[in-house]
Amino acid sequence: MEFKAQSIADFLGGTIEGDANAIVTDVAKIEEGRPGTLAFLSNPKYNKYLYETEATIVIVNQDFEPETEVKPTLIRVPDAYKAFASLLELYQQAKGNKTGIENPSFIDASAKVGNDVYVGAFAYIGKNVRIGNHVKIYPQVYIGDNSIVGDDTILFAGAKIYEDSRIGEACIIHSGAVIGSDGFGFAPTEDGSYKKIPQVGNVILEDNVEIGANTTIDCATMGSTIIRKGTKIDNLVQIAHNVEVGENTVMAALTGIAGSSKIGKNCRFGGQVGIAGHITVGDNVNIGAMSGVNSSIKSNRTILGAPAMDIAQAAKVFAIFRNLPALREQVLDMGKQIAQIKIKLEE
Amino acid sequence: MEFKAQSIADFLGGTIEGDANAIVTDVAKIEEGRPGTLAFLSNPKYNKYLYETEATIVIVNQDFEPETEVKPTLIRVPDAYKAFASLLELYQQAKGNKTGIENPSFIDASAKVGNDVYVGAFAYIGKNVRIGNHVKIYPQVYIGDNSIVGDDTILFAGAKIYEDSRIGEACIIHSGAVIGSDGFGFAPTEDGSYKKIPQVGNVILEDNVEIGANTTIDCATMGSTIIRKGTKIDNLVQIAHNVEVGENTVMAALTGIAGSSKIGKNCRFGGQVGIAGHITVGDNVNIGAMSGVNSSIKSNRTILGAPAMDIAQAAKVFAIFRNLPALREQVLDMGKQIAQIKIKLEE
Amino acid sequence: MEFKAQSIADFLGGTIEGDANAIVTDVAKIEEGRPGTLAFLSNPKYNKYLYETEATIVIVNQDFEPETEVKPTLIRVPDAYKAFASLLELYQQAKGNKTGIENPSFIDASAKVGNDVYVGAFAYIGKNVRIGNHVKIYPQVYIGDNSIVGDDTILFAGAKIYEDSRIGEACIIHSGAVIGSDGFGFAPTEDGSYKKIPQVGNVILEDNVEIGANTTIDCATMGSTIIRKGTKIDNLVQIAHNVEVGENTVMAALTGIAGSSKIGKNCRFGGQVGIAGHITVGDNVNIGAMSGVNSSIKSNRTILGAPAMDIAQAAKVFAIFRNLPALREQVLDMGKQIAQIKIKLEE
Repeated sequence: MEFKAQSIADFLGGTIEGDANAIVTDVAKIEEGRPGTLAFLSNPKYNKYLYETEATIVIVNQDFEPETEVKPTLIRVPDAYKAFASLLELYQQAKGNKTGIENPSFIDASAKVGNDVYVGAFAYIGKNVRIGNHVKIYPQVYIGDNSIVGDDTILFAGAKIYEDSRIGEACIIHSGAVIGSDGFGFAPTEDGSYKKIPQVGNVILEDNVEIGANTTIDCATMGSTIIRKGTKIDNLVQIAHNVEVGENTVMAALTGIAGSSKIGKNCRFGGQVGIAGHITVGDNVNIGAMSGVNSSIKSNRTILGAPAMDIAQAAKVFAIFRNLPALREQVLDMGKQIAQIKIKLEE
Repeated sequence: MEFKAQSIADFLGGTIEGDANAIVTDVAKIEEGRPGTLAFLSNPKYNKYLYETEATIVIVNQDFEPETEVKPTLIRVPDAYKAFASLLELYQQAKGNKTGIENPSFIDASAKVGNDVYVGAFAYIGKNVRIGNHVKIYPQVYIGDNSIVGDDTILFAGAKIYEDSRIGEACIIHSGAVIGSDGFGFAPTEDGSYKKIPQVGNVILEDNVEIGANTTIDCATMGSTIIRKGTKIDNLVQIAHNVEVGENTVMAALTGIAGSSKIGKNCRFGGQVGIAGHITVGDNVNIGAMSGVNSSIKSNRTILGAPAMDIAQAAKVFAIFRNLPALREQVLDMGKQIAQIKIKLEE
Repeated sequence: MEFKAQSIADFLGGTIEGDANAIVTDVAKIEEGRPGTLAFLSNPKYNKYLYETEATIVIVNQDFEPETEVKPTLIRVPDAYKAFASLLELYQQAKGNKTGIENPSFIDASAKVGNDVYVGAFAYIGKNVRIGNHVKIYPQVYIGDNSIVGDDTILFAGAKIYEDSRIGEACIIHSGAVIGSDGFGFAPTEDGSYKKIPQVGNVILEDNVEIGANTTIDCATMGSTIIRKGTKIDNLVQIAHNVEVGENTVMAALTGIAGSSKIGKNCRFGGQVGIAGHITVGDNVNIGAMSGVNSSIKSNRTILGAPAMDIAQAAKVFAIFRNLPALREQVLDMGKQIAQIKIKLEE
């Protein structure tokens, strides 16, 4: 896509200084600006880059005064950061503005598909599926029988939705994510082998949920595995059967939540966190990367470590841990001193 | 699907108390029963829920005596738990009872496909592939050349099987699982770059193996990476080249087994476990979540931690670890006492 | 595929001892040789296996002298290991020698596809995509709009490439890998919910990069997430937005690199490593499995642990860690001794 300085200024209600016909095809940070890119300058710390950047157009605050002549075309607006952010949103929407049904795709005769929907080639929509309006289903997506996908949701290429899933409105599910695979439930038998426990529940994603690439969310054994509205889950995360994650919680990559655990709302998990099964994590809980949580956690705590501790305690523990050899030396040395004292006392 | 109380009672050989025409369309735990669901009551601890549940039908033990009137239709059977479990199995089988070849799918002319097989749309079956009877190949599955898939196996949507793989009977492979990708083998060269070591082996899954969503199992460099019969592997697990996993072993999500390691039978691994390469883990070994195993482990042990220790030792170690600041205080305090003693002795 | 001893000897410029018409269809290690396999013997440690192996043909060094009669046909060459390795490469190339366009596949009219390319069934090539020569695109691969794929690259079944990606020459991307999914960027709002930060950058893979199965590499928020030439990434690895990984670095499975971190060249990471965001790891850094790195690391270091320490320090720390109960006993015992000394001093 190409944009002229004039069109951008018109859209933002800004004023141009320089070449109104300058053209950009991409965006960049001001310190990485290349010819043909649009950048912005808001934080005065970055002012120096304005005189070096090769960006073609730079959005600046209305009151910004350059110290010397600048090469890029400037567009002045009341708030350069906000203006740039709104352009980015527009840009992303324009990029993803696909509609229509590509061929071949598979839409079962019993499925109901809303208006203004994109169905990419090789996408599969099963029996009795209901797809809302303005939904984008990229190529090679699979939507199993009886599933529901709400309005404005985007399923990127190759996302897999098992039957009976309920996907809310304005959700984003990235490529390779698997929603509704069987929970990991097996009953041991007398001969040491395992018998599969039927997994007949489903997965519910409420509205505005984002699921990262290749993340897996298992269906419930019975009932539903639930991700509440506004929650954002990064790539390669495992959510086991019957887990429930509260509203507006964010989880970084490679985290695993074991079966039947309940996670509160407004929590923030770092990467590679592990949560044991059948426990409860309260609201507003922050968990540091690589922490292992094997018992329930009350609301409003910040924890770290495996096993997880309060962050202040963890900081002390890790500081000593790293210096264990010094502590041990000290103990050995004290042992010698005590021995010497004893000898002296015997004398 | 809809079931009448009468049909369920007939199937189970049970007797009805209440409305024989009551209809259910889903199952639920008794404490989560909603109208239209079937639940069961077996453990007396849950008796109280019978009087509150909104489930439409509840299966109870023959000799169960309610303390007061109950709303749901009851079906009395000798063992309520077993009866419910057998219904769930039936339900899951009925749900997944797909057959026939959907179009378009790709079945190479040289492939042999058994009887009563389901091949979903956009599934790909390569040259010389042999598919057994009653196999279900969901949409967008890929089966590379020369692979063999045994009777009664289910490959869920988007599972990827590289060429030359051998999949046993009654296996279940979930969406996004990758079987037979190249082992991670590279030889360093003099200029610091790496030369790929050809990976010409394959993967063998024996019978009754279940592989979770987005799990990856690499082929052997030469020979076979082998998963023995009855073993169950959860989601997002990495099994590297030339690994061998014994019978009836279960591994939870996000676990990684490095190249050429041998895992015994009847082992149980928690989530996020790491096993180093070229080591042996014996039979009946239990490994706690997040443990790191960097040397061989004898049979019948239960280990925990990174590096992994016997569970009893690990419990002691972690208790002290969490209290390291107190231990350090004690040491510092003892140091002061020793200094005072020395002064006293000098006097 | 079938090969005669005579053809192999001709190809290698070797001499035959035994049946020149012996036929092999597979390769094996000499200690695992089965009838119909080709093996090699180079390391004298393995000589004993030559007299037991059931391999049909064994490649040996020119000057090798068997101690007794051997069953397999021998092919003598100057360097048995090198000869075998070159055969393996040939074998792998022959196995993967697919060409032509399978149907149905989706190639947008605006896409440009080079010569001698394989496009498997159900593969999707979007608008303005440019595919080089000798590229292999396996079934069910997705290549989003405006992406570029260099000559000789292989995309295995079901790899997903988001729009605007740049894939270099001679890269290998395994099944289920996702290149260019959105970075995990959200701005908190006043009501506790999160607003998505548009992710308008892309991913650049330079030449000779290999990406493992189900690995995910997020696009940059702006600019590019970059994997430099010759770098090899294992299965199930997460590379977040705006990360840059230097040349010839290798990373084992289940590792996660958080946003905006820069990794140097010629590094080697074990499995399940975690790297925090916005840090720099120098060149030639080795990181042990399961290490957690939360601050920048200078070049040429070898580190281990979470938090990561120099390997020598880590070895000492872990040795003490495992024996913490003994250290604690020692401290308690010294406490008693000090108490006794004090009593004695009072006397």
